[in-house]
Amino acid sequence: MAQLRIGLAQVDSTVGDLVGNADLVSRWTADALEQGCHLVAFPEMVVTGYPPEDLVLRRSFVQASLDALEALARRLQDEGAGDVAVVVGYCGRSETPSPALGRPAGEPQNSAAVLHGGRVVSRYAKHHLPNYGVFDEFRYFVRGDRLPVVRLHGVDVATVVCEDLWQEGGPVRVARDACVGLVVCINGSPYERGKDDLRGPLAARRAAEAGAPLVYVNAVGGQDELVFDGDSLVVDADGTLVARAPLWEPGLMVVDLELAAASDDGAGPVDAGDGTRMTVERVVLSTEPLAPYEPVVPGVAVPLDDEAEVWGALVTAVRDYVEKNRFRSVVLGLSGGIDSALVATIACDALGADRVHVVGMPSEWSSDHSVTDAEDLAQRQGLHWSVIPIGPVVDAWLGSVELTGLSVENLQARVRGTTLMALSNEHGHLVLTTGNKSEAATGFSTLYGDSAGGFAPIKDVPKTLVWALARWRNRVAAERGERPPIPENSIEKPPSAELAPGQLDSDRLPAYEVLDAVLDAYVERDRGRAELLQDGFEPQVVDRVIALVDAAEHKRRQSPPGPKITGRAFGRDRRLPITSRWRETAAPTADEPEQARPEGH
Amino acid sequence: MAQLRIGLAQVDSTVGDLVGNADLVSRWTADALEQGCHLVAFPEMVVTGYPPEDLVLRRSFVQASLDALEALARRLQDEGAGDVAVVVGYCGRSETPSPALGRPAGEPQNSAAVLHGGRVVSRYAKHHLPNYGVFDEFRYFVRGDRLPVVRLHGVDVATVVCEDLWQEGGPVRVARDACVGLVVCINGSPYERGKDDLRGPLAARRAAEAGAPLVYVNAVGGQDELVFDGDSLVVDADGTLVARAPLWEPGLMVVDLELAAASDDGAGPVDAGDGTRMTVERVVLSTEPLAPYEPVVPGVAVPLDDEAEVWGALVTAVRDYVEKNRFRSVVLGLSGGIDSALVATIACDALGADRVHVVGMPSEWSSDHSVTDAEDLAQRQGLHWSVIPIGPVVDAWLGSVELTGLSVENLQARVRGTTLMALSNEHGHLVLTTGNKSEAATGFSTLYGDSAGGFAPIKDVPKTLVWALARWRNRVAAERGERPPIPENSIEKPPSAELAPGQLDSDRLPAYEVLDAVLDAYVERDRGRAELLQDGFEPQVVDRVIALVDAAEHKRRQSPPGPKITGRAFGRDRRLPITSRWRETAAPTADEPEQARPEGH
Repeated sequence: MAQLRIGLAQVDSTVGDLVGNADLVSRWTADALEQGCHLVAFPEMVVTGYPPEDLVLRRSFVQASLDALEALARRLQDEGAGDVAVVVGYCGRSETPSPALGRPAGEPQNSAAVLHGGRVVSRYAKHHLPNYGVFDEFRYFVRGDRLPVVRLHGVDVATVVCEDLWQEGGPVRVARDACVGLVVCINGSPYERGKDDLRGPLAARRAAEAGAPLVYVNAVGGQDELVFDGDSLVVDADGTLVARAPLWEPGLMVVDLELAAASDDGAGPVDAGDGTRMTVERVVLSTEPLAPYEPVVPGVAVPLDDEAEVWGALVTAVRDYVEKNRFRSVVLGLSGGIDSALVATIACDALGADRVHVVGMPSEWSSDHSVTDAEDLAQRQGLHWSVIPIGPVVDAWLGSVELTGLSVENLQARVRGTTLMALSNEHGHLVLTTGNKSEAATGFSTLYGDSAGGFAPIKDVPKTLVWALARWRNRVAAERGERPPIPENSIEKPPSAELAPGQLDSDRLPAYEVLDAVLDAYVERDRGRAELLQDGFEPQVVDRVIALVDAAEHKRRQSPPGPKITGRAFGRDRRLPITSRWRETAAPTADEPEQARPEGH
Repeated sequence: MAQLRIGLAQVDSTVGDLVGNADLVSRWTADALEQGCHLVAFPEMVVTGYPPEDLVLRRSFVQASLDALEALARRLQDEGAGDVAVVVGYCGRSETPSPALGRPAGEPQNSAAVLHGGRVVSRYAKHHLPNYGVFDEFRYFVRGDRLPVVRLHGVDVATVVCEDLWQEGGPVRVARDACVGLVVCINGSPYERGKDDLRGPLAARRAAEAGAPLVYVNAVGGQDELVFDGDSLVVDADGTLVARAPLWEPGLMVVDLELAAASDDGAGPVDAGDGTRMTVERVVLSTEPLAPYEPVVPGVAVPLDDEAEVWGALVTAVRDYVEKNRFRSVVLGLSGGIDSALVATIACDALGADRVHVVGMPSEWSSDHSVTDAEDLAQRQGLHWSVIPIGPVVDAWLGSVELTGLSVENLQARVRGTTLMALSNEHGHLVLTTGNKSEAATGFSTLYGDSAGGFAPIKDVPKTLVWALARWRNRVAAERGERPPIPENSIEKPPSAELAPGQLDSDRLPAYEVLDAVLDAYVERDRGRAELLQDGFEPQVVDRVIALVDAAEHKRRQSPPGPKITGRAFGRDRRLPITSRWRETAAPTADEPEQARPEGH
């Protein structure tokens, strides 16, 4: 056996910031060196940030990634970290053509390098490319078919990338054939509710397949519609969890492992067990095991409950969108209702009260409590509060254009949206949109009105979870001896858009418990009408919900990004045509035929 | 040799409209039967419409496609067309697992069936799946590895699908090995400028590879961001063009071919020449060649010039978006400038004057000619014309919120956008957005202002082409002896947003000839900064344009769909992160650091 001290650098890189990302690697490698690490692993594509999307199609970008990698190897050596093996993800280029894919050499690859002694000592390209959900990796990359095995202090180490763990066969199988002592998997694995419950067992299964301990290092931080949760972990060869990093916290986790000493020098092509062949390559850095030393005691983070996990996702997403896009402040409308109250609280937790501006925009249909509840929240949290009544502008409009009914409702929402955009233009705030997923799904929002803004923090949060999060956040405050940040009245009152007298959401939608259950089945699990009826939902509820969801596609197409927290978020994760006559139901529901259509278009 | 009369049904199906699409197949098959066709071919996925995007992930949808296919076979028999071999595209399901892709049996496939005698007599699944540009077919489909060869009146016919023609090897190679007498390729090939110039040579090359004539039938019509141009054609085995259908016109093209009589019964697996193996299967419908008959004389459509081709794309896209989404009318703002003048003219050509509503919305900064030129256009074309001055609403706003400079400019644009949306809500019009590609690229538009709307007809049309199209359309009118629809003054005056006194586009942008050339290189051809300098563009122009394009990503993410006419349209075709610090240039240009950022967010 041979010892190695491994650092898992769970860091937050920024797409396109090759300079900043190199600084990040340099800084955390210095930290790992100080803690005596022999190997430190960074997340998937840490050099470029992940996912860079179509930037990969630009040759200048891929070249910059390659140049940055070489420069980073030299820099780490110059900074005295040349003896540490540093595993980083970057955007590489294929060295040989891929005839099966009709792609020449020089195509981009999602790659992992080992840096050591001032040089790039090995390059691996991701073998399994995800092309589902939010992922389009066949668009960008060609798969790799080589597995370099790097001998470090007498231990053979194989590096794989993210999806390589989620598919059967491939490099993990080949790593076993190559008798490696350790598998390092670098990841850009986006958060989804409960995904952490899958990662542990998956890593355990793959470690068993490899016959070696597995080090899993994941990114943390937000990138447009995605948020990475970290949750880096280490499992032993028998699948036992050795160490686990907390969600949502950048940091370096240090683990000492007792690993099998290298015993095999076999190289060359082998069957990868997935219909392909891969080639094992050997790289030798140092063959002598280290002198025995006292291991550090690894930490295992306590799992978060569901609300805490989601809260971390939303706060991280907002903070990173604001910081990475260099906004100093945010602005949002506060209606006194639960959605905007929750978004304000997320923003305050993410940025601090002084960077959050909230505006009450009452109309003649607004209840008294709409302003008092909003002001109550602003005072509890110390946010910048102002009131801009929309009446004068709405009246001026109604003097110019003759409007009735729903048109007047939408007009009010658009006057509010435009007011927030004007404040954004004048003061440089980012506008946060306050719509939830149930609303986005059913089209109960006004395009360019309440849906206007640059970022939509709770876009993927169903309404029932909005309430649960609000109650959870208040409970946490109470447990800390703080004043709950969200007024009880905002949580408890019946939801209403307040765009017409006495209006309630329940006039037009099923109860949210029912609605969210149908939406979960129809949107997130692609259940058809017959399957929804099998699930036990009422036919008229199913038909109503389906009709609403289908008719709102054009609104969702124009909505701002927001963090994915469910199995199927609106956005890159769900790509439906706007022009579609496919209806799971035979006909539009009778009571409100295609009402959502003119409302949005 | 043996004769066959082939019908190429260049039709416009609708995504999700399985009933309507079956009617379409029935109607055109009856027409083909009447004209004596022995085989009629419809476009790719005509049964479901194309591309159905994530509808394919819903089992109910795939099952509906399979059921519709079986029903269609029976129906054609019942309607007396059982003797005609009918080739249709549909969404199928794989019968065997794809181990290399880790996919089980029952996964969706992009399929082509031959219907005959009331039955589905063969099923082929697309072998080459496009996963670039606007295509995500690895997301949806598993590739097929079988090639059915159907013997009809003594001729062996192989059917392939679209991308199968654009890649080397695969089913065309296998068809040659199987000694087929005819290759039928069914397509959903979206329009791009000049793509028709590629299709002829491509079809000729593939016919030579197959050693047999090739029938290429393409869809016509609009689907969200795509517009299909038709351009169906037939080439002989030596590559000679035999027949070609006009662009933009649904119809049946009938061609008689002298084909090699079947001479081979070989079946089983063969090397497809692309790193895969495919299996030839034989289906025999009728072995006796037809008695000799007099062939019809095929037509070869005259190629359109570039402007006519693009005009057809824009008119088709608008018409289909409006009709397929069941709008009765459209509304747009007329500024007196060229962009809105062109969009109004496209809409009038697409829908007729009575369905087009145009609104002048002058402000205090509007020139006199802004209203007179707009009214002139409305009168020339007979559109519904009204004027709604925005002053009173803007004034009401400025009384509520303190705004300066750019914020006031944006406010004016948003008052106009909201006015159009209010008219849409009140009267059910679809709002057409009038922004061009140069504007979308550089972010010279206001989110929720001039960019508001349901469909953006000239979203992918660079400004220089906007002028060329306007001049072309007026010239066509003059040639027909009609009054030119677009006022000369709208074409000739210097472009201005008229959001501040004396404002001109040229104050803030390079000349459009230069701008469009840089955009073509940077956006459409992914040239980096160094390459742009190599191309001979001025460094300060390059840096300015790149900075503007990069900073406007968040605006484009929220823009409505519009038809793709270039090699790289904004939308599904170009997927860039909003949060990105990648800059081809070292720093933002000094004169206006990140001005586009607060304007949009």
